[in-house]
Amino acid sequence: MSGHRRRFDEVLDWFSPRRRYAPLDATAWLRNVNPSGDGYGTSDEEVLGFDDDLPHGAASTTVPISDFTVQSKCKYSDFSTIDWPLELARDRQRRKNFRAQKVSGCLPWLKFFFDSGSAWFCVFAVGIWTGVTSAVVDIGEGWMSDLKFGLCQRNFWLNREHCCWAIPSHNCTDWQTWPQIFGADHSMVGHFAVDFGFYVTFAVSMAVFAAVLVVFIAPYAAGSGIAEIKCILSGFVIRRYLGVRTYAVKMFGIILSSASGLSLGKEGPAVHLASCIGNITSRWFPKYANNEAKKREILSASTAAALSVAFGAPIGGVMFSLEEASYYFTFKTLWRSFFCALIAGLAVRGVNPWGNSLPTLYHVEHTIRWVVPELIPFVVIGILAGLLGSAFIKLNMALCAWRKSSSISKHPIAEVAFITFVTTILAYSNPFTKMSSSLLIRQMFNNCGKDSTPEFCYGYPLESGNVFYYILGALVLKFIFTTVTAGIKVPAGLFVPNIAVGALLGRLVALSTQWLVNNVISVDSYKGYCKMGENCVTPGLYAIVGAAAVLSGVMRMTVTLVIIMFELTGSIEFVVPTMIGIMFAKWVGDATHPVGIYEAQIDLCGYPFLDNRDDETVEASVGDLLAVKPNRELIVLEQAAISVGRLVTLLRDTSFCVFPVVTSQEEMIVVGFIDRVHLERQLAAQVVPDQNATVVFGSNAISAGPGCLHWEKLVDMAPICVNVHMKIEIVVEMFRKLGLRQVLVTNNGHLLGVITKKDLLKFVRHN
Amino acid sequence: MSGHRRRFDEVLDWFSPRRRYAPLDATAWLRNVNPSGDGYGTSDEEVLGFDDDLPHGAASTTVPISDFTVQSKCKYSDFSTIDWPLELARDRQRRKNFRAQKVSGCLPWLKFFFDSGSAWFCVFAVGIWTGVTSAVVDIGEGWMSDLKFGLCQRNFWLNREHCCWAIPSHNCTDWQTWPQIFGADHSMVGHFAVDFGFYVTFAVSMAVFAAVLVVFIAPYAAGSGIAEIKCILSGFVIRRYLGVRTYAVKMFGIILSSASGLSLGKEGPAVHLASCIGNITSRWFPKYANNEAKKREILSASTAAALSVAFGAPIGGVMFSLEEASYYFTFKTLWRSFFCALIAGLAVRGVNPWGNSLPTLYHVEHTIRWVVPELIPFVVIGILAGLLGSAFIKLNMALCAWRKSSSISKHPIAEVAFITFVTTILAYSNPFTKMSSSLLIRQMFNNCGKDSTPEFCYGYPLESGNVFYYILGALVLKFIFTTVTAGIKVPAGLFVPNIAVGALLGRLVALSTQWLVNNVISVDSYKGYCKMGENCVTPGLYAIVGAAAVLSGVMRMTVTLVIIMFELTGSIEFVVPTMIGIMFAKWVGDATHPVGIYEAQIDLCGYPFLDNRDDETVEASVGDLLAVKPNRELIVLEQAAISVGRLVTLLRDTSFCVFPVVTSQEEMIVVGFIDRVHLERQLAAQVVPDQNATVVFGSNAISAGPGCLHWEKLVDMAPICVNVHMKIEIVVEMFRKLGLRQVLVTNNGHLLGVITKKDLLKFVRHN
Repeated sequence: MSGHRRRFDEVLDWFSPRRRYAPLDATAWLRNVNPSGDGYGTSDEEVLGFDDDLPHGAASTTVPISDFTVQSKCKYSDFSTIDWPLELARDRQRRKNFRAQKVSGCLPWLKFFFDSGSAWFCVFAVGIWTGVTSAVVDIGEGWMSDLKFGLCQRNFWLNREHCCWAIPSHNCTDWQTWPQIFGADHSMVGHFAVDFGFYVTFAVSMAVFAAVLVVFIAPYAAGSGIAEIKCILSGFVIRRYLGVRTYAVKMFGIILSSASGLSLGKEGPAVHLASCIGNITSRWFPKYANNEAKKREILSASTAAALSVAFGAPIGGVMFSLEEASYYFTFKTLWRSFFCALIAGLAVRGVNPWGNSLPTLYHVEHTIRWVVPELIPFVVIGILAGLLGSAFIKLNMALCAWRKSSSISKHPIAEVAFITFVTTILAYSNPFTKMSSSLLIRQMFNNCGKDSTPEFCYGYPLESGNVFYYILGALVLKFIFTTVTAGIKVPAGLFVPNIAVGALLGRLVALSTQWLVNNVISVDSYKGYCKMGENCVTPGLYAIVGAAAVLSGVMRMTVTLVIIMFELTGSIEFVVPTMIGIMFAKWVGDATHPVGIYEAQIDLCGYPFLDNRDDETVEASVGDLLAVKPNRELIVLEQAAISVGRLVTLLRDTSFCVFPVVTSQEEMIVVGFIDRVHLERQLAAQVVPDQNATVVFGSNAISAGPGCLHWEKLVDMAPICVNVHMKIEIVVEMFRKLGLRQVLVTNNGHLLGVITKKDLLKFVRHN
Repeated sequence: MSGHRRRFDEVLDWFSPRRRYAPLDATAWLRNVNPSGDGYGTSDEEVLGFDDDLPHGAASTTVPISDFTVQSKCKYSDFSTIDWPLELARDRQRRKNFRAQKVSGCLPWLKFFFDSGSAWFCVFAVGIWTGVTSAVVDIGEGWMSDLKFGLCQRNFWLNREHCCWAIPSHNCTDWQTWPQIFGADHSMVGHFAVDFGFYVTFAVSMAVFAAVLVVFIAPYAAGSGIAEIKCILSGFVIRRYLGVRTYAVKMFGIILSSASGLSLGKEGPAVHLASCIGNITSRWFPKYANNEAKKREILSASTAAALSVAFGAPIGGVMFSLEEASYYFTFKTLWRSFFCALIAGLAVRGVNPWGNSLPTLYHVEHTIRWVVPELIPFVVIGILAGLLGSAFIKLNMALCAWRKSSSISKHPIAEVAFITFVTTILAYSNPFTKMSSSLLIRQMFNNCGKDSTPEFCYGYPLESGNVFYYILGALVLKFIFTTVTAGIKVPAGLFVPNIAVGALLGRLVALSTQWLVNNVISVDSYKGYCKMGENCVTPGLYAIVGAAAVLSGVMRMTVTLVIIMFELTGSIEFVVPTMIGIMFAKWVGDATHPVGIYEAQIDLCGYPFLDNRDDETVEASVGDLLAVKPNRELIVLEQAAISVGRLVTLLRDTSFCVFPVVTSQEEMIVVGFIDRVHLERQLAAQVVPDQNATVVFGSNAISAGPGCLHWEKLVDMAPICVNVHMKIEIVVEMFRKLGLRQVLVTNNGHLLGVITKKDLLKFVRHN
């Protein structure tokens, strides 16, 4: 399908909601079923040469050749995996053809220039668009979030901060809370009723509206989307996951859901939004529109841009793309990702209509240094964060599995409404959960300077107030909220809630350390670091370390988090504590739960993702895999012994995308393989003299008479083959590094079977 | 050879200089010669099954089995390439064995802990050692550099800065120049004679001493070594390149050569030093000592540590390792590299006995912002830098080629003396070349604050003084010095001289821009940016952009340079100008010379390096490669038809490391391949009943009688095979991504030949 056609379809789809959003099932390949007849689920598990129904040899009823139309659903249908070497070879061929054209005159030169530079134009456009999207989401969320409390009387589209711009907040009469607007400010009960009523009503309505958008218009807009994007970048095809509709719903949905006060963040969805932008933008450039492998280069760059904008950390964004999101990351992609991340950062700064806020979300300036004995509390933070992270993953996965199996899955909107209601009410009970996550994080990261509210600063536990217990309560609440929220049908990211949990954890450890130093440890032994009666620890630093450590415990990222924290704080001083925290969190986390949250989600959803980080140690050979494959007969094409009628029947009755070609059924020596699409195109294009005409696929096949058709050119004569004795580990390595979709299995040159990526994954997961 | 044995050999070698430093020839594989008989040069080009001399079928004279000793020179001899899948499989096996052992008691647990954590212990040790080495080099160079001018009278081991510590320099009597010491300070001529005489004498002696060390003790210590380290990291084996002797000579050599005032830097050699440290340290850990693939993970981390220390930029160091040096870079390596880089950074700070200098070499603090129209001069800098970079590579390569072929190559020490002499004299003529490179760079990077010497600040060209022409002269001189110096037989890096050239270039463009703004462009159009009569440009920023751009033009790095510059300046503001400069420099550079200096050096030296950055578009198939290979007969083992005597002869008369095993000479169906080492070990270990006993290699071979030996276990039954029709591009991809050493070429299951990495490289280079 051409780029134009596809775009037009998208527009049509836009006006016919739910047309294609029948319940899809990405896991069909795991259970060996071939769901529905509408072309979905034709995963490449069924692609290759295995079919029970069709007897060999005798051709069944033949189909008139004139009836034959190209189906072309195989390249690439939904939930299939792409063939990287093939796609990259196509791109090389394209470039060769392009270079072979003579460049003369102005227009061809411009065309050449456009094509050569299209990568840069594309990532530039992605960067700008991502920046603008991010700004729109920020502004929208800010306004909607304040809407729960009141309205700007002067200009209703201003949020509280900008309504009272340059006016001390206690003198600002333009901004009125709902009790003020409804005149309920005089009675205590009335005030509370209106205030709380509006707050809860707005929160629940926003969340429900987001859920309605997601459920009825774009189901793919739910969650953070990072797990799916990881799969897509590894070569999985999920059609419409990165489409215009998903983009629009996700954008409005994330504004609504994050304004509703649910415990979720907008950084994960920002990655999904940026990927949609990358996908949509790449359609304008023929180089990327028609090549799935090249398109993924743009998607990698988009991912980098998303986090660059979200945290104001361009290098962190690139590292995120490299470490977490991307699968194949070339140096060209690295450089373009960096460019894209930077452009996005500049764009959001340019668009920001207020111009006051710093580009970084939680810009911190610390001047106090840490001392070596403080490494002990940092290690403690790391260990606790690792345990928290694993607990989060385990609980969330259990909850998601239960949710899937129970009847709740039939009422997603009611679930969202209920969770929002409970979250809102409980959050009211604690000053730290009442405020927005970003404000909470800013408070926690802050040191106790002149601007910070004193109560959040050194409130020694057991002494001034109950800050310690409030923080502990907030930590427990936040943790539960986050666990419950991740998985409901609204756009929801995991970064911010986990940063909040981590910051609270770090602050708790800071308070405990301060108390220990003051009350238990003889201050003499701390001499030189800390004077009697003074505050020794920097609670903001502990909060930063805690945030990084919890993120590491949940997502199992490492370098990315260090770099993001480095870019936020801008000081190399704080890299060491952050690294210590992250290292221990990752070690403890890996010991208590083997994979991060995204890999766990991928496992739960059953996506065919071959993790390129773990080093498989499966004690088996290719033969063992073939032995446990469902025992279907191997369908092959003989190089010289198939009639046109039989070929048409084969194509009609099977859904395999590729057929191996062999010398003969008896010998089974591999000649090559042939693509379904090519066969169909050839059948549709060629005038066939006779239904019984023989087709010849091998160049050294004995000619079967004067009427035979020579279709050698359709055959890929150089398939990648593996020996039946080869260890599974090496085969996994080949699939991973070369991005293969299938290999032929041979022994002494004889074809024994075919292994697809999904076969391999199924085998590795069960061993 | 075990780790112990090897270490002992190293110690022995230490006392027998030049024992093994006979003229080696890494390029023998390119010319199809098999140099010398001492085991060197048995590159894996000769490894596989091609030999003219030996007739097939008829067994020649047999060797008594008792004479047979294991040669084991094949795994891995000098200038061979390693087999990554094999090495990684060995590591997996090792881990499996280790886990299978029961862990009980304290000592086994400790052993287990040591083995699991050995990666971290190893990179920790590497980090500390690299930091200490860097500090020693810095201190040594500082003292030796000042020795050219005078001596500290109080403590002769102090350099000028620390001799006059806390004393204003004009009041400092402890530090005396040579004319003062020799009482020649009164007469003008005497002063000049003593000053200049000592300066030149010391410079030349230091350079000559460095050259003597290099030529007579460790020839591998010459140059920067980055090109060779790239090759080593890609899987090439250069024995002794990373040994103790090379380390020691390189360390002292770089102190001497950089103190001599030659136009060279110590950052490149620091990378080599760190790699030596990584190699030596990895010998203490069995996990790394005996596995070439795993050892390279430590080397990647070491490389990161080196640049981290050199520029005070840990993230930049990691990116350097990722972008430039390393070949296979897993996520584990990334994280450990970061750790190593950080530890090294902390170590150098801890060791630094003065504690005054900032960790960064050229720490810059700019507060002035740039404006959009300044992007034009930044683009100009980029274009000029790209041209300069390409010119540098072309000139330097031409010079190196000429040097190799001419008689100069026989007198390397005289060459060093001559170049040092000329450099010293010419450098005296210009104030900018007279000062040390690092001082020059600091001056150029500086803005015009209160501390900077006025003459280096805005000296408008054609107005105050001749600053413009001095800078231009310095640029030309520096460029020529650097071109001539790179390639002589002293340790010499390219970073600092190129940064100096770039900084001068940037400063020139800054002065020109300032002049244009003041004199040509109507200042009105610049309104808002720049007031009449004020200075509009920030020359320090231009110098930074120029430095990054020239480095990019010479080395073709991108992200690494942006990050290093970001870490130096600490401001995201300056990332955009730097990126613009680097991008244009790389584009213009790539257009005028296809590869960077390190790749050019690799080409010149003929190392077998398969660049993982360029996307080959060779229009050929595996068959074309086989067709142009020297037409030797294919030596194979039949699975059931070889006598022990014939086998021994074969092993004696050939030097191939691997032999393919086939069903029979007539059929040539691939069964597998067998390693020479395994065959030799088996022959040495087994009691052979009879010289004519038949050896059976295939499990399905017809048994050749009761006396036959079953050696099926020695055969690797799952070799990686490619089809003869496969495109070379795909094969290159397989070699690159999987790190293969050889593949078997088959057609319909029949063995047609063997392709090694070197065959492939030779073919790709000539097509």
